[in-house]
Amino acid sequence: MNAPTDVAHLLPTVEQREVPEAFLAALKQRFGAQCSTALAVREQHGRDESAFVSVPPPAAVVFAESTRDVADAVALCAQYKVPVIPFGVGSSLEGHLLAVQGGISIDVSRMNQVLAINAEDLTVTVMPGVTRKALNEAVKSEGLFFPIDPGADASIGGMTATRASGTNAVRYGTMRENVLALEVVTAEGKVVRTGTRAKKSSAGYDLTRLMVGSEGTLGVITEITLKLYPLPEAISAAVCSFPSIEAAVRCVIQVIQLGVPIARCELIDANTVRMVNAHSKLGLREEHMLLMEFHGSPASVKEQAETVQDIASEFDGNAFEWATTPEERTRLWTARHNAYFAAIQTKPGCRAVSTDTCVPISRLADCLLDSVAEADASGLPYFLVGHVGDGNFHFGYLIDPDNVDERRLAEELNVKLVTRALQLEGTCTGEHGVGLHKMGFLLDEAGAGAVDLMRTLKRALDPDNILNPGKIFSA
Amino acid sequence: MNAPTDVAHLLPTVEQREVPEAFLAALKQRFGAQCSTALAVREQHGRDESAFVSVPPPAAVVFAESTRDVADAVALCAQYKVPVIPFGVGSSLEGHLLAVQGGISIDVSRMNQVLAINAEDLTVTVMPGVTRKALNEAVKSEGLFFPIDPGADASIGGMTATRASGTNAVRYGTMRENVLALEVVTAEGKVVRTGTRAKKSSAGYDLTRLMVGSEGTLGVITEITLKLYPLPEAISAAVCSFPSIEAAVRCVIQVIQLGVPIARCELIDANTVRMVNAHSKLGLREEHMLLMEFHGSPASVKEQAETVQDIASEFDGNAFEWATTPEERTRLWTARHNAYFAAIQTKPGCRAVSTDTCVPISRLADCLLDSVAEADASGLPYFLVGHVGDGNFHFGYLIDPDNVDERRLAEELNVKLVTRALQLEGTCTGEHGVGLHKMGFLLDEAGAGAVDLMRTLKRALDPDNILNPGKIFSA
Repeated sequence: MNAPTDVAHLLPTVEQREVPEAFLAALKQRFGAQCSTALAVREQHGRDESAFVSVPPPAAVVFAESTRDVADAVALCAQYKVPVIPFGVGSSLEGHLLAVQGGISIDVSRMNQVLAINAEDLTVTVMPGVTRKALNEAVKSEGLFFPIDPGADASIGGMTATRASGTNAVRYGTMRENVLALEVVTAEGKVVRTGTRAKKSSAGYDLTRLMVGSEGTLGVITEITLKLYPLPEAISAAVCSFPSIEAAVRCVIQVIQLGVPIARCELIDANTVRMVNAHSKLGLREEHMLLMEFHGSPASVKEQAETVQDIASEFDGNAFEWATTPEERTRLWTARHNAYFAAIQTKPGCRAVSTDTCVPISRLADCLLDSVAEADASGLPYFLVGHVGDGNFHFGYLIDPDNVDERRLAEELNVKLVTRALQLEGTCTGEHGVGLHKMGFLLDEAGAGAVDLMRTLKRALDPDNILNPGKIFSA
Repeated sequence: MNAPTDVAHLLPTVEQREVPEAFLAALKQRFGAQCSTALAVREQHGRDESAFVSVPPPAAVVFAESTRDVADAVALCAQYKVPVIPFGVGSSLEGHLLAVQGGISIDVSRMNQVLAINAEDLTVTVMPGVTRKALNEAVKSEGLFFPIDPGADASIGGMTATRASGTNAVRYGTMRENVLALEVVTAEGKVVRTGTRAKKSSAGYDLTRLMVGSEGTLGVITEITLKLYPLPEAISAAVCSFPSIEAAVRCVIQVIQLGVPIARCELIDANTVRMVNAHSKLGLREEHMLLMEFHGSPASVKEQAETVQDIASEFDGNAFEWATTPEERTRLWTARHNAYFAAIQTKPGCRAVSTDTCVPISRLADCLLDSVAEADASGLPYFLVGHVGDGNFHFGYLIDPDNVDERRLAEELNVKLVTRALQLEGTCTGEHGVGLHKMGFLLDEAGAGAVDLMRTLKRALDPDNILNPGKIFSA
């Protein structure tokens, strides 16, 4: 058992390395007004949406506007052996952005151009600062969309770095399946391309997928080529209430096992529905429910919905309520995406400790129900949402960040949940990444041998350990 | 331009390293009758289905029966710095199995057990020597199937190592998308597990996908966990003839761009249809044709077929001929899979130099048609088949292996084809892998920077370069 059993790791070990004056001078000379050392800017770049106790911020923030900028910044970091942490919009959840070893932040939000839409090939190439919503705006007029949708309007660079997914992954896969090619700046400051626009390839090691999910520790992503999908001819969304979480989950398991190509299949527990209703003025029935969406031709959408309705009724699900217009659907999914914000507004000043396990679908009920019982018994308020079609779900325990007892309680719940998920052949993180928070759990999940392989790869590609050091595993 | 322009590389550089007597003695002591040094056995393990001039065979063949056997064999190789080449069924096409630096072969064909079918999670765990047909036999009674189907009845271990795909990849993806977890023996002889049975994960570096497609150069795969799929409720297969290859290809491009979830979409040119008819007694119209298959509910299959029929008629495709019974379908796809063998039987004693490019779908016509013209002009007999829904196709030039002029001619055609594919943003190998044959092309495709990254990874994981050395890139 390598996972922490108390909150000590929420006060991460800070080993700030020296950031030489000569380095800062060189950085300012190269980047001028693109380089900021203002405290407020640095502080904004030294934290994320996690509940981590803050650590000293990075020494400077470079606002990169091009691959050249990123390469030059990293080359300077390499020269002076200064850590460098890439930053998109700051929406990560596991402490990825904290400058635990000091160094600088490279903010790529100004690298926000959609470089090429190849509609006829269903591909798009973007800079890393493009957000998922901006991308979808850009490709909508071509009749295309990009399905990966973490809750936040995250940057594509950040989504690539954390192997993000979201509500559509059950049908369309995650960033793992949807990144075709990358441009990456290596630890030496060299620009390298991985992959091509071909849909498949057996040409050597899969560097693209090695970079996807590497959380800024193997390279800084400066360009991403993604798969796109034709907007479905027909879309329909439905909500269905269930008498218990168990009934909802058992319904989902059967839908997946039957191979229904459902596009979205989300669980929200009754308590979270209440929060979402209050936040988004939705008027949903305040019961445990599945939010579902079907994509396809009109006939196939109808057929999928009928199949799922039949299954739902076996588990005492209520008749579907339909969101048929685009506006209603957008309202529904926006509310779902805002569950996190809806929840944290119910307890002023709180932070959410998010969990993120994923288990084989047959183990979902076992994993989820025991964790619900534990959360209920703890007395901590929480929200519960899940991409249950993938076996992935999230509790968010709402804590007062200054209350050590609440931190400890939330962390104890998280430890129990992850331990259970691993026993059920699952993973300690379905889509948020390891960051600082899951380092112990990764060792439990993958074993020392596999983590040693990761460490060997890291040392080979980044011998001075300057790329987002102290994340995923200890050096 | 790093690709070879003549056939020099078809006489690969052989730098046989020493295989110490003490090593062979230790190997025999450990493995007894499981270790063979008989010439016929060694020769069988020192070649594959490629047209490479044979090189001296491995010094010994170990018939592994367990992960422990593999680990012990590799540990001995590590101790004596002796190269080791994993062997499944020997169906690879780019020289992967040739012992260009000597050493031994580990034959995993006796590791042929299906270890666990988790039908409710749609996963299966197998030993590497299980073949794709044996796997499908094993899971059929559960109502499940595994879609990846290279032409040969390849081993799952070999398919994983070469990132194989086949006719169903257009809908179900390749080995890249369908391997969930692995057990691998490292260059030190340690046993490591990567991945879990969870459908998605963000837990650290994607070691699974680093191993998939690494062609035995980073580890020896000893166990594979795969995704399975429910057998579709309805399946229908159809053949449709076209007046020209161009018409067939343009039809495919439109089908893909419209997002029709076609399960198989294969091109066979008229000449290859003739070969297949002769070999498999099929009686297909001897015209350029698409072989297609639709999976889904009865209504969705009907709808997909109607959509494709409409598109086909725009390109002067003939009315579909349907293969509706399972027997007819099996006959059709078996014939397709046997195209390679059908072709080589038309020219006694010949070998096929296979090509394997893949381009973005919009570039398919440009890439394919010019290559057809070049092949026709060359006068070499050839077959042409393609997983055209993925933008992937294969010429097989039929040469007399002892005729240097024919070798040169075939290789010139291949060079022109790959060069064109790379110019069109494609890849030098869609599914066969790099082996020996595509090493120069990989450098053209990926660039020196990316190949340097691959080399750095290789050196880190296999510092003594014992795992299938001399393949993918030069050390």
